[in-house]
Amino acid sequence: MFGLAVHGGAGTLPRAQLDPDRERAYRAGLADALQAGGEILARNGSSLDAVTRAVVVLEDNPLFNAGRGAVLTLDGHHELDAAIMEGSKLRAGAVCGLHHIRNPVELARTVMEHSDYVMLHGAGAEEFALQQGFSLVANEYFRTEERWRQLERLRRGDPQLSPLTISHVGTVGAVALDTKGGLAAATSTGGMTAKRYSRIGDSPIIGAGTYADDRCGAVSATGHGEIFIRAAVAHDICARVRFTACSLEQAVRDVVYGELVALRGEGGVIAIDRHGHIAMEFNSEGMFRGSLTAGGEPRTSIYGDP
Amino acid sequence: MFGLAVHGGAGTLPRAQLDPDRERAYRAGLADALQAGGEILARNGSSLDAVTRAVVVLEDNPLFNAGRGAVLTLDGHHELDAAIMEGSKLRAGAVCGLHHIRNPVELARTVMEHSDYVMLHGAGAEEFALQQGFSLVANEYFRTEERWRQLERLRRGDPQLSPLTISHVGTVGAVALDTKGGLAAATSTGGMTAKRYSRIGDSPIIGAGTYADDRCGAVSATGHGEIFIRAAVAHDICARVRFTACSLEQAVRDVVYGELVALRGEGGVIAIDRHGHIAMEFNSEGMFRGSLTAGGEPRTSIYGDP
Repeated sequence: MFGLAVHGGAGTLPRAQLDPDRERAYRAGLADALQAGGEILARNGSSLDAVTRAVVVLEDNPLFNAGRGAVLTLDGHHELDAAIMEGSKLRAGAVCGLHHIRNPVELARTVMEHSDYVMLHGAGAEEFALQQGFSLVANEYFRTEERWRQLERLRRGDPQLSPLTISHVGTVGAVALDTKGGLAAATSTGGMTAKRYSRIGDSPIIGAGTYADDRCGAVSATGHGEIFIRAAVAHDICARVRFTACSLEQAVRDVVYGELVALRGEGGVIAIDRHGHIAMEFNSEGMFRGSLTAGGEPRTSIYGDP
Repeated sequence: MFGLAVHGGAGTLPRAQLDPDRERAYRAGLADALQAGGEILARNGSSLDAVTRAVVVLEDNPLFNAGRGAVLTLDGHHELDAAIMEGSKLRAGAVCGLHHIRNPVELARTVMEHSDYVMLHGAGAEEFALQQGFSLVANEYFRTEERWRQLERLRRGDPQLSPLTISHVGTVGAVALDTKGGLAAATSTGGMTAKRYSRIGDSPIIGAGTYADDRCGAVSATGHGEIFIRAAVAHDICARVRFTACSLEQAVRDVVYGELVALRGEGGVIAIDRHGHIAMEFNSEGMFRGSLTAGGEPRTSIYGDP
């Protein structure tokens, strides 16, 4: 038995704005990530390898707000955040404020596996990356025409756009259960469009956007990061599973439709437990998501319909 | 009814190294913080004001590893982290990687109250600070002879010192209950001695080193930050109070002597709930700590004895 779920962000994305070609492209991107991670799980690879690989595929896809295709800061740069966590030993790694790392999730994993630290920032993290054999890329590597136009429209004060609505659509993440019963979670993002002041969102915060504990579940979140930090969303879901009699699915629903709605926190989460139960819930109009279990076909969806 | 607890760090500090003069000085610093925060609570001020004030007093005291007297990074700079959280609305603010802010906890609070963000880093946070009317100070402001000598000894590879043992002793924090029943927590630190790569510890991570929720409690932690992040210590304590029948005291003990010991995470926490119960537990040799309740005398202690 194994299981894998991925997300490509959640938010307000009116169906009218998502034409059939674009919808197909997003779904294909999610399916690519499921396939890449699923292959690893199918040959008894680790959940850690699977979520790393699935997130790398999504980071490399310019449609999503992570890696290439990340949103821009107010001053026109890309600042990337990512985290990864392994449920068996509660090991974790996180990076934030990166400018030059092609696949932030891979650096988060290297921080976890090859440093005494959990969380590194910016130029310091990149110095560590160089010592670990990473290559740096120009910040322009991450740029796409579409993100640039979004920033321009925001700077002009286009009333149809807000930093939240643009950015929700895109943060990526994955959660997995491997055939040995191990759980892992990973999340990667360009953050909020037009962000300032070296803002750090929930994705790289262990316990907020990312958490994994074999006793409870693995969780990756996407949404209005500030609220997700305040609610400690990912850890809260795990704590409910551990300390109350509820299922992972119920814990996810209670947090997404209860705690988060009470704080007006738009977004969603994907989660998986050690029994392979997958929960994907969101209180926004849509969430790009997909899942795969042993012997099944990959399934992807965007809106509330299955 | 009100209550206030403060800590000035936890760790391995052999009694032999703490001569009576030095012990008196530490205790006086804790008592100063209790008095400053206690005065606010006694005149019906908010828990938020009380923890801010108590932490500012400890940041200004060069004995503690926060603000002036903070430890040094490997390359000889000071990088400061802080967070604050209010339990009634789950509002939070955090800053990390600061070089030029005299009282990081005050900037964390300003992030919470005057920005759309929760967490800001380094130069970006300092740009925000300038816009909010903060003055910057030179990085040398934070330097003390003693911290410099510690770094020099570490650089020379003195076997009697480790980054952990030095740094534990010093992170500061406060938790408070005000007469209106509101809880707040704040934590501030210079991090781990000889840290590299813009390492971020648990203090500014909402849910790890700092958390407050009026439904459960307010928590500030000090110890081996990486482990505290992985265990989501502060949120875990709150979750146990909320989701199980246990008291705050029991939740604190279960996390400090259970979860943290299992992960070899040395350190401790202070916590308070809405009934005014104060818990201060540590699995290290000592924890600089103090508490004050309405009508009582401030109490301070360092080792296991009361």
